[in-house]
Amino acid sequence: MVILVLNCGSSSIKYQVIDMEQTGSTLLAKGLVERIGLSDGVLTHKPVGRENFELHRAIPDHTTGIRLVLDALTDPAHGVVGSLDEIKAVGHRVAHGGEFFPQSCIVDEDVKRKIRSLFEIAPLHNPANLEGVLSIEKVLPGTPQVTVFDTSFHQTIPAMNYLYALPHAYYEKYRVRKYGFHGTSHHYVARKGAELAGLDYEKSKIVTCHIGNGASVTAVLDGKSYDTSMGFSPLDGLVMGTRCGAIDASAITFIGAKEGMSYAELDEMMNKRSGVQGMTDLSSDMRDIDKAYNEGNPRAIVARDMYYNRVKKFVGAYAAEMGGVDLIVFTGGVGENSRELRRSVCAGLEFMGVEFDPAANEVRGEDKILSTPASRVKVAVIATDEELMIATDTYNLVK
Amino acid sequence: MVILVLNCGSSSIKYQVIDMEQTGSTLLAKGLVERIGLSDGVLTHKPVGRENFELHRAIPDHTTGIRLVLDALTDPAHGVVGSLDEIKAVGHRVAHGGEFFPQSCIVDEDVKRKIRSLFEIAPLHNPANLEGVLSIEKVLPGTPQVTVFDTSFHQTIPAMNYLYALPHAYYEKYRVRKYGFHGTSHHYVARKGAELAGLDYEKSKIVTCHIGNGASVTAVLDGKSYDTSMGFSPLDGLVMGTRCGAIDASAITFIGAKEGMSYAELDEMMNKRSGVQGMTDLSSDMRDIDKAYNEGNPRAIVARDMYYNRVKKFVGAYAAEMGGVDLIVFTGGVGENSRELRRSVCAGLEFMGVEFDPAANEVRGEDKILSTPASRVKVAVIATDEELMIATDTYNLVK
Repeated sequence: MVILVLNCGSSSIKYQVIDMEQTGSTLLAKGLVERIGLSDGVLTHKPVGRENFELHRAIPDHTTGIRLVLDALTDPAHGVVGSLDEIKAVGHRVAHGGEFFPQSCIVDEDVKRKIRSLFEIAPLHNPANLEGVLSIEKVLPGTPQVTVFDTSFHQTIPAMNYLYALPHAYYEKYRVRKYGFHGTSHHYVARKGAELAGLDYEKSKIVTCHIGNGASVTAVLDGKSYDTSMGFSPLDGLVMGTRCGAIDASAITFIGAKEGMSYAELDEMMNKRSGVQGMTDLSSDMRDIDKAYNEGNPRAIVARDMYYNRVKKFVGAYAAEMGGVDLIVFTGGVGENSRELRRSVCAGLEFMGVEFDPAANEVRGEDKILSTPASRVKVAVIATDEELMIATDTYNLVK
Repeated sequence: MVILVLNCGSSSIKYQVIDMEQTGSTLLAKGLVERIGLSDGVLTHKPVGRENFELHRAIPDHTTGIRLVLDALTDPAHGVVGSLDEIKAVGHRVAHGGEFFPQSCIVDEDVKRKIRSLFEIAPLHNPANLEGVLSIEKVLPGTPQVTVFDTSFHQTIPAMNYLYALPHAYYEKYRVRKYGFHGTSHHYVARKGAELAGLDYEKSKIVTCHIGNGASVTAVLDGKSYDTSMGFSPLDGLVMGTRCGAIDASAITFIGAKEGMSYAELDEMMNKRSGVQGMTDLSSDMRDIDKAYNEGNPRAIVARDMYYNRVKKFVGAYAAEMGGVDLIVFTGGVGENSRELRRSVCAGLEFMGVEFDPAANEVRGEDKILSTPASRVKVAVIATDEELMIATDTYNLVK
């Protein structure tokens, strides 16, 4: 069953075409539409095993973007399906499912209504995600669609970890609580990591570190998310490329009052101008921070030390609340590629049973155990594959 | 040397009179002035070994309050010194020393100027603290005064733990950073706990949990504060009586925008109407929460579980970043009195070498080791004594 996986952002569409079978999956193509709404849009289409294809033109809206993707998929030269009829289902990544969606589901009117009702608490992502669903209704009418939510995996988090210690009325009135994000990735790498480490996923204590430009840590207890470092929004927790992560909220009201900033301006500052970018005034990309670190840039040194140490603290905190840890998993752009991050996070954790193997850590692009055979706590690096998870959920719901 | 220790709040003065010698100290009296600025002020004076004395009258300002304290201290019936000349020094608790004061110091014009320059970031406490210093200048002119700062102990925290991942300019411009509080208490119980556990304080990894109406956890590495849960203000970190502790800052901007609240109103909400009070709408006092918990009140159950679990997570986080822990110390009103808190925080920490002794935990009002003799990590309860620390610093600086 050929499935189109879509991840629609406000000005971009990422896609993959995956052929799912009971026994496995085959990636047929992937690609990216960028600069939607501008006059110089770009489609980059990458059919597996063939030459990439690039198209430059104005792409005024998501529907146009998706039409171009479908054209590319059926093109005689660089297409991967004979006709659009071969695409049997579309799976969408949706950022925020609120308390409505503890799992993926087939799209109907009620689902669309609920996604729309969450625009207010997910203003950056949900509108674009819904736009993708509506565009597919236009260009592929009748094709079943599935929405897979970044928050679903975290709906098992207990109240003591998802509530905030604020006046209870704000939860009643606005559903202000921790939701957590990257759920699809945490779920995927926790399960895959357990498999690789020979653990029973349903009976293990796992800490998953999804460290990319956005980053979060999750405690997975007996196969269920028990706690996670992102909160009401993707701002909280770890230091990220441009997001501040955990911060004393009174520092924010202080800055807001001193600078005469609005709430929207504070949000913009915390989300877009903070993190390692804001600390260093250099870059939001950890590869640039690594370079500056190695050159002895003092602010890059503090930023990277903080970035790493914050991950380590969450590993310790989550181990404590789960009563120990069997497996620590690294994933995401930085988690998969930075040996130094993994080494630094695991350094000093011998007291909780981690025996890190520096030789095994010399790896890139391979799912691998990074702890010694004797280590009581296993450590693994797993390449995340959210698209495969979305395709799998879509396949299971539609088949 | 007889020393008067003062802790001046906005409408109250707590005091102790302590006779300090090279070899030890003797508490002569303690007491409390309340409702300063109102027509129905109260002085409660407790001379050691004698009847308490109470005075009800209007107390318009701190100077009047301190005069009444001095009258009580020299009163033939309930006084503890023959004349005011016997008071050789006054030690003040000051909430915020900013980056100016890594240790206690003798008051001079420069010190007063610096305390005043911190009014902006410590608006609730520093003005009253300085008021106490100025009042003593009036009523006990020429008597040496010492200021002991709640923040000093934490000035050793490294930059990766005291900076926030915000645009660097806010640190340069406003000194927005983590300061930490309860420093005098954390310092005192870490040292005392190490002594009780037979550890070398200067070479130990200690986590101190000061859990009272305000509450914070500190990582003490080799005798120095390495990290602490309160931040720029005393709002951050643990769930407290009326403070929310750690929260996604974007939840606060969201509530502010939805409710049309000012920054000052948000601060008031987070500091005065949150914590277990806000979660339960019952009480800010953990004894009331315990009662409701035992009666099965669902919101009290979540609030207490969160309150305890948050402490446990900081213990784990700080153990991780120190590379282990040798000693966990509980202190403060709740830390000293709630067996259930201590039991719950230590439960499940066997994986990091904690063997908690439930029988030893059946203690109240005694400094004691609560772990088994075999436990790799020691656990202790220590009654905090900030006044004694203030008197000791004052004595050492003045003698």
